[in-house]
Amino acid sequence: MASQTTNPSSYRFNHTMYRVKDPQVSIKFYTEVLGMSLLRKMDHPDAKFTLYFLAYSDDKKSSAEYDDSVTIESKLFGRQGVLELTHNWGTENDSSFEGYQTGNGSSQGYGHIAIAVDDVHSACERLEKLGVPFKKRLQDGRMNNIAFITDPDGYWVEIIPCPGQ
Amino acid sequence: MASQTTNPSSYRFNHTMYRVKDPQVSIKFYTEVLGMSLLRKMDHPDAKFTLYFLAYSDDKKSSAEYDDSVTIESKLFGRQGVLELTHNWGTENDSSFEGYQTGNGSSQGYGHIAIAVDDVHSACERLEKLGVPFKKRLQDGRMNNIAFITDPDGYWVEIIPCPGQ
Repeated sequence: MASQTTNPSSYRFNHTMYRVKDPQVSIKFYTEVLGMSLLRKMDHPDAKFTLYFLAYSDDKKSSAEYDDSVTIESKLFGRQGVLELTHNWGTENDSSFEGYQTGNGSSQGYGHIAIAVDDVHSACERLEKLGVPFKKRLQDGRMNNIAFITDPDGYWVEIIPCPGQ
Repeated sequence: MASQTTNPSSYRFNHTMYRVKDPQVSIKFYTEVLGMSLLRKMDHPDAKFTLYFLAYSDDKKSSAEYDDSVTIESKLFGRQGVLELTHNWGTENDSSFEGYQTGNGSSQGYGHIAIAVDDVHSACERLEKLGVPFKKRLQDGRMNNIAFITDPDGYWVEIIPCPGQ
């Protein structure tokens, strides 16, 4: 099966995955608030979970326009900067579900994703107006060019300036 | 301070951060085993932590060649697919440090990063030879085109084929 060679320097950091309680709420946040596009939704009914793949993209096709062709696989898995959200069915309606660990509480490990924005002050003003919770505003602490917000599950999202934009 | 506009669709998913116990071990893993380049190291001696930024890059400069110029900031923060590792000083020598939560144990949330490779079979053969621990080999389960390995802290790394390569 295997070929004789593999070149690690040609690899790509394709995606980052975390679990979300309610995909409707999370997809709304990552698309409408953070401006990502939903590239693909993959249902796994046998194991009762669904995967959502989001990214910033020049390709503004809706997810409904995607199919299982190689072209789409290549589009999704041949690029970088993809966010995969996993929804284990039922958590959104389970009153006993205590939510996911964000990695920044008493149980530490994972930290955050970072979004580079065109204008960090305008971006943060807009997020404030939208009512997004902040962990660190631009003016808090010593690093006045970065902010931290939280997504609907409490995961941290860093907002950083993108030089040159 | 703020301009009047911000365009969320122009944002970029720049990086993903997690904490590591021993940066020497982790940097060796992400560069020598997974083929990433260390783009930048940022020491914060006041708060006793160091950040390491890694990515797959056509730019093969060593980290020693980078400085604080705007060009380098742009190179690092104007792109996608960056991995930021945070080292809180001392964990590597602290026998009482119990390690970080990976998000996939009893405390769930974060899942994994995924690396798209040129040839998934060759890549996995190479990882086996290097003694990298597997959570799921290609032949395990029903999805025979993906594997999961673990990094030195136990974080999961998915190995997926990159169509078209």
